[in-house]
Amino acid sequence: MSHLSKTITREVLKVQVGQSAWEEDEIVTEYPLTIFLGDEEFATIVCTPADLEEMVIGFLAAEGAIRSYDDIKQVTIDEAKGFAYVDTHQQTVLSQSFYSKRRITSCCGKSRQSFYFFSDARTAKPAADGVTVTPEQCLHLMDTLQASSAIHRQTGGVHNAALCSPEEVLLQYSDIGRHNALDKIYGYCLRHKIATDDKILTFSGRISSEVLLKSAKIGASILLSKSAPTDLALQLAEELNITAIGFIRQDRMNVYTHPQRVLLA
Amino acid sequence: MSHLSKTITREVLKVQVGQSAWEEDEIVTEYPLTIFLGDEEFATIVCTPADLEEMVIGFLAAEGAIRSYDDIKQVTIDEAKGFAYVDTHQQTVLSQSFYSKRRITSCCGKSRQSFYFFSDARTAKPAADGVTVTPEQCLHLMDTLQASSAIHRQTGGVHNAALCSPEEVLLQYSDIGRHNALDKIYGYCLRHKIATDDKILTFSGRISSEVLLKSAKIGASILLSKSAPTDLALQLAEELNITAIGFIRQDRMNVYTHPQRVLLA
Repeated sequence: MSHLSKTITREVLKVQVGQSAWEEDEIVTEYPLTIFLGDEEFATIVCTPADLEEMVIGFLAAEGAIRSYDDIKQVTIDEAKGFAYVDTHQQTVLSQSFYSKRRITSCCGKSRQSFYFFSDARTAKPAADGVTVTPEQCLHLMDTLQASSAIHRQTGGVHNAALCSPEEVLLQYSDIGRHNALDKIYGYCLRHKIATDDKILTFSGRISSEVLLKSAKIGASILLSKSAPTDLALQLAEELNITAIGFIRQDRMNVYTHPQRVLLA
Repeated sequence: MSHLSKTITREVLKVQVGQSAWEEDEIVTEYPLTIFLGDEEFATIVCTPADLEEMVIGFLAAEGAIRSYDDIKQVTIDEAKGFAYVDTHQQTVLSQSFYSKRRITSCCGKSRQSFYFFSDARTAKPAADGVTVTPEQCLHLMDTLQASSAIHRQTGGVHNAALCSPEEVLLQYSDIGRHNALDKIYGYCLRHKIATDDKILTFSGRISSEVLLKSAKIGASILLSKSAPTDLALQLAEELNITAIGFIRQDRMNVYTHPQRVLLA
């Protein structure tokens, strides 16, 4: 049971033109967690302090430091200090400097625009076919994501991500860091060996190249977003066989890539 | 004159429940720029491809790699390759590994929550007093920021940041990366030796600890945001004497720290 809190309350001067008053308000927490991999300091993640073990596992997998949950011997989290200690079975884990550099590879056979992080090239693979979705299902999943995020309504300060079937939200996380919310999903799926290639990711934030790559690593073939994509994310979505759908608002949406998975009336 | 484009156009399947059509749409560009400092690869920044020299200068200053514009001998940008080469006068520039690690210091005399990056501790100092702002001015600056950002209206995919006097927006940048927009302001101010301690920063994104620290480095004493702050950002704002104002929407706003700079009716 965690003793950390996702929000704090604080006196805030609420100002409306012509009037003002001090009121209690809820503020989202920002918590730095430093991950040690074996004896080495690997990274510090600033996050919402919940579901830390899932986040650490998902982060390490996304970075290519582990390949499956079975690579992990033990995860110990010292909440008060903000430290996570991870022991792995193998010594094949690469040093931090290996990950801190972005490399340009030619693995896409295209221009420099199709860059990957070096570790990304090892962990992202084209998405599976099979799962389809209707526009109504997309709208329903996005509505559910937003409606069920209490912390978002309270504080306005977090991103939400959910793993879904076409019919319903299966698993949802909120975090001040967009990547953390996705890492928490990834970590949960690895830990509980949940199949992802028949699933949909629903996300409150923008579809950047990094978000797209993280979706690819998680293994989802459809990515739903409330917001805009970037050109580089769409290039990657084309190559990685991911259906990217953005601007899901009210009764509309934009399908950017691989529309064959969207069942139109 | 840059040959890079901030947006591309692309065929998008626009879906409304019951109907759909392919239409041309504008998509924001995401451009990776790798910075070489002397002979060393320093970092890769994914950004909106505009004002790259300002961004590089601001980024290096924010990271503590340079202390003023005079430290720079030359900046050369190869747009086609996505490389920026920076030569400095001194050899005192520290190696990349020095920056890639976050350090916890006790410089705030508080708990671990008040962490800084190691480089941050060297470059952030408490803000100056003197500048004040009215609620009407806050609303005007935020309206101006949002209204004048054409790329935001077109694509929905960028963050906006502006350096302002209490009366008007002086300098504004848009970028897909929240930090890049602030780095571009910082770089411009350093290059043109613009005083910042009597200025206001207006920002479209959330006030995270990193955004707050970047504002402190730039030297502004008032930070205006359309969105929410985090608790850690507010702790830092208290310590660094910065007035943090969030949720500036319609005719309302929340003043979180140092309200003495806000002139109420």
